[in-house]
Amino acid sequence: MNVEHPHSQSGRSRVLIEEITPQVDHGRFAAKRVVGDRVVVRARVFADGHDAIHAMLRYRHLADEQWSETELDSVGNDWWQATFQVQKIGRYEFTIDAWIDRFATWQRDLHKRVDAGHDVTVDLLSGAEIIEEHLPVVDSSHQQPLKEYVSLLRESNHRPTQIQAALSEDLAKRMRAHSDRRFSSRYPTALPIEVDRIQGRFSTWYEFFPRSASSQPGQHGTLADCRERLPYVAEMGFDILYLPPIHPIGRSFRKGKNNAVKALPDDVGSPWAIGAAEGGHKAIHPQLGTIEDFRELLSAARDLGIEIAMDIAFQCAPDHPYVAAHPDWFRQRPDGSIQYAENPPKKYQDIYPFDFESPDWQALWDELKSVLLFWANEGVRVFRVDNPHTKSFAFWEWAIAEVKKEYADAIFLAEAFTRPAVMSRLAKLGFSQSYTYFTWRNTKPELTEYLTELTQGAAREFFRPNLWPNTPDILNEFLQFGGRSGLMSRYVLAATLSAACGIYGPTFELGVVTPREPGSEEYLDSEKYQLQHWHIDAPESLRHFIARVNRIRRENPSLHDNSSLRFHPVDNEQLICYSKQTEDGGNVIVTVVNLDPHHVQSGWVDLPLSCLGVDSTQPYQMHDLLSEERYLWHGSRNFVQLNPHTAPASIFCLRKRVRSESQFEYFL
Amino acid sequence: MNVEHPHSQSGRSRVLIEEITPQVDHGRFAAKRVVGDRVVVRARVFADGHDAIHAMLRYRHLADEQWSETELDSVGNDWWQATFQVQKIGRYEFTIDAWIDRFATWQRDLHKRVDAGHDVTVDLLSGAEIIEEHLPVVDSSHQQPLKEYVSLLRESNHRPTQIQAALSEDLAKRMRAHSDRRFSSRYPTALPIEVDRIQGRFSTWYEFFPRSASSQPGQHGTLADCRERLPYVAEMGFDILYLPPIHPIGRSFRKGKNNAVKALPDDVGSPWAIGAAEGGHKAIHPQLGTIEDFRELLSAARDLGIEIAMDIAFQCAPDHPYVAAHPDWFRQRPDGSIQYAENPPKKYQDIYPFDFESPDWQALWDELKSVLLFWANEGVRVFRVDNPHTKSFAFWEWAIAEVKKEYADAIFLAEAFTRPAVMSRLAKLGFSQSYTYFTWRNTKPELTEYLTELTQGAAREFFRPNLWPNTPDILNEFLQFGGRSGLMSRYVLAATLSAACGIYGPTFELGVVTPREPGSEEYLDSEKYQLQHWHIDAPESLRHFIARVNRIRRENPSLHDNSSLRFHPVDNEQLICYSKQTEDGGNVIVTVVNLDPHHVQSGWVDLPLSCLGVDSTQPYQMHDLLSEERYLWHGSRNFVQLNPHTAPASIFCLRKRVRSESQFEYFL
Repeated sequence: MNVEHPHSQSGRSRVLIEEITPQVDHGRFAAKRVVGDRVVVRARVFADGHDAIHAMLRYRHLADEQWSETELDSVGNDWWQATFQVQKIGRYEFTIDAWIDRFATWQRDLHKRVDAGHDVTVDLLSGAEIIEEHLPVVDSSHQQPLKEYVSLLRESNHRPTQIQAALSEDLAKRMRAHSDRRFSSRYPTALPIEVDRIQGRFSTWYEFFPRSASSQPGQHGTLADCRERLPYVAEMGFDILYLPPIHPIGRSFRKGKNNAVKALPDDVGSPWAIGAAEGGHKAIHPQLGTIEDFRELLSAARDLGIEIAMDIAFQCAPDHPYVAAHPDWFRQRPDGSIQYAENPPKKYQDIYPFDFESPDWQALWDELKSVLLFWANEGVRVFRVDNPHTKSFAFWEWAIAEVKKEYADAIFLAEAFTRPAVMSRLAKLGFSQSYTYFTWRNTKPELTEYLTELTQGAAREFFRPNLWPNTPDILNEFLQFGGRSGLMSRYVLAATLSAACGIYGPTFELGVVTPREPGSEEYLDSEKYQLQHWHIDAPESLRHFIARVNRIRRENPSLHDNSSLRFHPVDNEQLICYSKQTEDGGNVIVTVVNLDPHHVQSGWVDLPLSCLGVDSTQPYQMHDLLSEERYLWHGSRNFVQLNPHTAPASIFCLRKRVRSESQFEYFL
Repeated sequence: MNVEHPHSQSGRSRVLIEEITPQVDHGRFAAKRVVGDRVVVRARVFADGHDAIHAMLRYRHLADEQWSETELDSVGNDWWQATFQVQKIGRYEFTIDAWIDRFATWQRDLHKRVDAGHDVTVDLLSGAEIIEEHLPVVDSSHQQPLKEYVSLLRESNHRPTQIQAALSEDLAKRMRAHSDRRFSSRYPTALPIEVDRIQGRFSTWYEFFPRSASSQPGQHGTLADCRERLPYVAEMGFDILYLPPIHPIGRSFRKGKNNAVKALPDDVGSPWAIGAAEGGHKAIHPQLGTIEDFRELLSAARDLGIEIAMDIAFQCAPDHPYVAAHPDWFRQRPDGSIQYAENPPKKYQDIYPFDFESPDWQALWDELKSVLLFWANEGVRVFRVDNPHTKSFAFWEWAIAEVKKEYADAIFLAEAFTRPAVMSRLAKLGFSQSYTYFTWRNTKPELTEYLTELTQGAAREFFRPNLWPNTPDILNEFLQFGGRSGLMSRYVLAATLSAACGIYGPTFELGVVTPREPGSEEYLDSEKYQLQHWHIDAPESLRHFIARVNRIRRENPSLHDNSSLRFHPVDNEQLICYSKQTEDGGNVIVTVVNLDPHHVQSGWVDLPLSCLGVDSTQPYQMHDLLSEERYLWHGSRNFVQLNPHTAPASIFCLRKRVRSESQFEYFL
C-alpha cells in the first residue's frame, strides 16, 4: 500500500486559515478598492487543542518584491482581523501566515498555574528551554536580555522574581519579535485586490452628443463646439464627460431618423455604426473635426477638472476598413455577404458584429486592444464600453488587464443591460463600474432591495454601480410622467444612493421626456439618429439644481462610497430614507426623497441613532443641504414633509454634539 | 510589451460556468451523500450574446476510467440543472462542459425568422453549411440522413418542405447526438462527492459500558456479558452499539470514583486512560476478555443487525507501551517527565497526549493509522473518535482517507464538543457524522435556529449531525429536572429531527439523572470511573417507548434524511412542530413535541399544505404513530394538545387523498 504523507514538515503545521475576506470566488477575481482605503481583512484562524496562535497578515503591491506584515488580532469565536492601507493604484495581494506560538502558550498557561497556586518549578525550566531554543533566530539586540531571562528562570532562588520575569511583557515582546515560524501554515492563495484611483468609485458623469453641440440650429456640431460647452458641464459639477462614438459613420444600410430602415440623403446615421472610407475606430468623424481638435478638447476639459470618456463600441459598419481587410473577423454567409447583427426577428443591418470564434481571433484581440491603447495614448483614461456582453468575456478580462499594464489609472464602465449573472461576471473580470437596473427601480421596496443587494451583498466587493436616471436608450416611463419633480427626485436618488452616477443631457436638465410612441422607452427624434439643437440656457433648466446636488456630493465624503448605505423606516410608502457615513463617523448624510412626483407626502422617519453616532438623549441638527434649512431633531422618530412642487427631497447633513455641552459641532 | 493570449483555442471558448453546487469550499472538500441518492447539480451557465448553449454534466466514480454524461436543462435566469444517481460507496467527482450550440442557435433563429415572414433563402443555405461541416464527426447511422437534409435545404424547390425539414425534431436530434465541442468550456475543478453507505447518514446509536454489563452486581462485566445484552439492544431498535475503550487501562495516576485524584486499590480507572503492561490500542483489557471474545461479540451483533463502534481515543496512560518505546511522540519536560494532558489549571495526569509537532511525526501517523486498520481488519467499520479536535487536523484528513482506501465502508463519528469552526472543519475533512450542541438546545427558538442552520445552511453538504440527549460526559440540566417526560421528549426530538441519533444507556432508559453535585453535568457515581449494575428490566424503563420510536424511524424513509426538515408555526412557545418528507412526497412525517415536561400544553399548528402535497380543500388523516390514534384534519390550522404525563409528543404520519374520491390512501 502506498502511504503518502504530506510533504516534508507540513504534517507538523497545525494551524488552519479559512474564510478570508475580502475575496471574490476564492481569489479567482480581485476585490476592488480605491487609493487610500483601509482594507479590513478577516479570517477564521484556529488549531487543534488549546495552544496560543500567532497570525500575520502579509500583503504587497504586485510591483513590490517585499511583503509587508501586520499582526492579526483575535476578535472572538476563531475570527481574526487586521487592516492595511492601499496607497498605490494597481494590483495588491494578501494572504495570512499563522502558527502555534509555543512561548505565548507557555506564558499564558504559567499565568493560570500561578493563579491556581500550582508548583511551577518545572514550568519555569520549560520556559527557559523555550527561550534558549529560540536564541539562534533572534536579533543581536535581544540576545543578551533573553540570556539573562534564561539564567533567572533556571538559577534564581527567588521565586517571585522568577515569576514576575517569566510573565513580563518585556519578555513577551522580545520573544514575539522573532516568533518561531518553522511550522507556520499559509493560506494557500494570495488574494488579489485591484486598487483604482478614487474616480473608479466616485465619479459624476455627463453624456451629450457632440454633433448636437453647435450653437447654430441645424448645423453639425464639432469637437470645437464641445470645447465651448465644457464650462456648462463643469458648472453643473460633472467630472467625467462621456461622448458617444466620434468615429466615421458607415453609409451602407445607414438608419434614418427615429430608426427608419432607410436613411434619407442628409441623415447623419447612428454614431454606433462605426467605420467608413475615412477610417474606423482610431479615426475621427470628419464632420466633428480632427485628432488635433480632440487633443484640444481633452486639454481644455482637463483644465476644468473634466475627463473625457471614450465610447468603445466594438462593432463595424459594413464600410468599416476592417471588413475588407479582415473578412475572417466576421461571420460569412453562404451568399458571400457578411452576417449583420440581429436578435431575430430584429435586424441591425448597419452593424456587423465581430466573430469571437474566428480562427484569426488572436489578431482580432490584438487589434481591438490597439484601439484602446491608441486612445489611452492620446490621454483618454475612461472607457465606457458599449454592450460588452455581446463580446467574449475572455477577451475583456485580457484586454482590460493589458491596458492596465500600461495605463494603471484606466477606468472601464460596462454598459451591459442584461441578466444578473452576465453583469456580475463583467464586473468581476475587470470593469471598474457598471450600469444597473436603477432606471427601472422606482418604488421604495424596489430601490431598497436592489441597493441593499448591490451594497451589502457579495457584489459589494466587485460591482460598482453607476446609476443613470436616463440614457439615450432609456427614457423610463417614470420620467415621462413625473414632470420636473420626477427628474429632480431621480437625480437625487442616483447621486446620493451611489458614489457613481450620471445623466444624459441636455435632454435631462431640459426636461425632454417625449417618447417615440406611447409605451416606448425611446426618445422621440432621438439624437441617436439625427442632430438636435438644445436651448441650454432655458430658464426651466434643472442645471442649477443639479449643480447644487453635485456640490453636495463633492463636499460630503460619505457620499464617495457605498458601503455604509443603510435604509431607515418611514411610515409612508412614498417616502424613502437612507443614510451614509464615513468610517470615522465624521460625515453623516441622511437623504429623504418623496417618490410621488405629484403630491405632498409626509411621515415619521425612524433613525438608528446609535449607529449614526448620535446621543439619543440630546438634540441634533439636521441641515438640509438642498434648501439650506436647519431643523433641530430629538430622538429617533421625527416628522418630515416634502412638497414635490418645490423640492422632492432633503439631503440632510446630520450635525451631532461633540465633546462638551458648550461645543456643538453645529455651532462651528 | 509581452502579449500573452490564453492558450491555444481557449480564446474561442465563450461559455462560462459558475456557482456549481453541491460544493464545499470550491472543491477543496467533498460534499457528502449516501448510496442511492440523486445528486442535484445546479450551475450558472451563460455566454456572451444570444447564442444557444449546450451544457453537459460529467461525473464518475473515481474507480472508473470513464466519465458518464447527462445534459443539463436550463431552468431560467442562466441557471441550469441536472441530476445523477450515486450508486457505489466511495468518491465521485463531477464537473460541467458547456459550449455554444451553433446548430441549435440556427434552428431557433430560423423559427423566429419564419414566424416573422422573413425571406430565409440564405438562412437555409447557412443551415446546410452547418450540417455539412458537422458530418465528419457524426456516427455512420446519421451520415446518410444528414446528407439528405443538406440536399433538401440546398436544392429543393419546395420552400414549405425545406422549412419543415429544417425545423424538424429529427434533424435536431441527429445534430445534438454529436454536438461540436471544439470550443467547449470546462468548469476548472472536478468537484468531489463522498458517498457512504446509508448508515453514514441514517443510524441509531446506543452506548453502554461493557464493564457494567455483568448480570451479577459488583462483578466486572466482560465482552461475553455484552454479547448477552445484544438482544436487549436489538429489541430497542438500535443498529450501532458503541463501546467506550476496551483496551488495558493505565495504573499510574489512575483516577478514583467520581474523578478522585487518587484511586483506591480496587478502582477500575477510566477506560480512556489507555495502555498498560498488557498492551495498548490494539490490545483488549484482560478483565473484559480476549480478541476471540471480541470477534464473537462482533459476529453475534452482526447476526442481530448491530454493528460495533470502536472508541478511538488517541492518547496514552503513562504506562502505555508507546511511552517507553517512542518517547519522541510525547513532549518531554525539563525534569525528564512527560507532559500530561492539561487545560490549565485543569490537569489530567492519567493521560499523555501525543505531540503532533514531534520530529518523528511520520512514524506516529503511521502507527495511529495502523490502530484503525487493525480494528477494521477485525471487522469494525464504525469509529467514534474521542476529542478529534485535540489532534492535528492534517492527521485526520490523511488517516480517514487512508482507512477508506482499504475499507470504503468505514464510518467516523467526531466527538468534538468545541467551537463551530473546529467542528465544521472536522466534518469537512472526512468525519461522516458529528456530535452537536443539541444537548444544550432545549427551547423552541434554540432548536429551530440550530437545526435550520445544520440542515439548510452551508453545513448541510458536509456536516451530518448525530443528536444525543445524553452522553457519559453530559447530563444536561433539562434531563435532571424534566423527569420521565423530559427523557421521552428529548429522545423524540433527537430521533425525528436527525437521521442520526443516539443515547447513552442504560442510564437513559432507566431515568438515571442525578448529577455529581448541583450545577454539574457529570453523572453521580459515573461509570467513567467505576462499575455499575443496572436493572435493565425495571418496569419504569423507557425501553419499549424507545423501541417504538426507533421502529417509526426505520419504517418511515422521510426520517432517514435531514434535507427536507422544515419547522411550522404553533401559537404556543412550548409546542414545537416540524415535518420531513421524502423527495417523491410519498412519506410525510409531522412531529409535534411538548417542550414543557410538567404541564399539558395545547395550541394551533399551521401546516404549509401545498408544500406537503395536501389538497387544502380536502380533509387528510394524521396518524399518530406513537399513540396509534388517527385524526381527521382539514385546512392548514389544526388543534393539538399534549399531556407530558402520558405522551409528550405525537409523530404523525400524514396520509393524504390519492387518485380518486373513493380511494383515500388512509383507507388502505
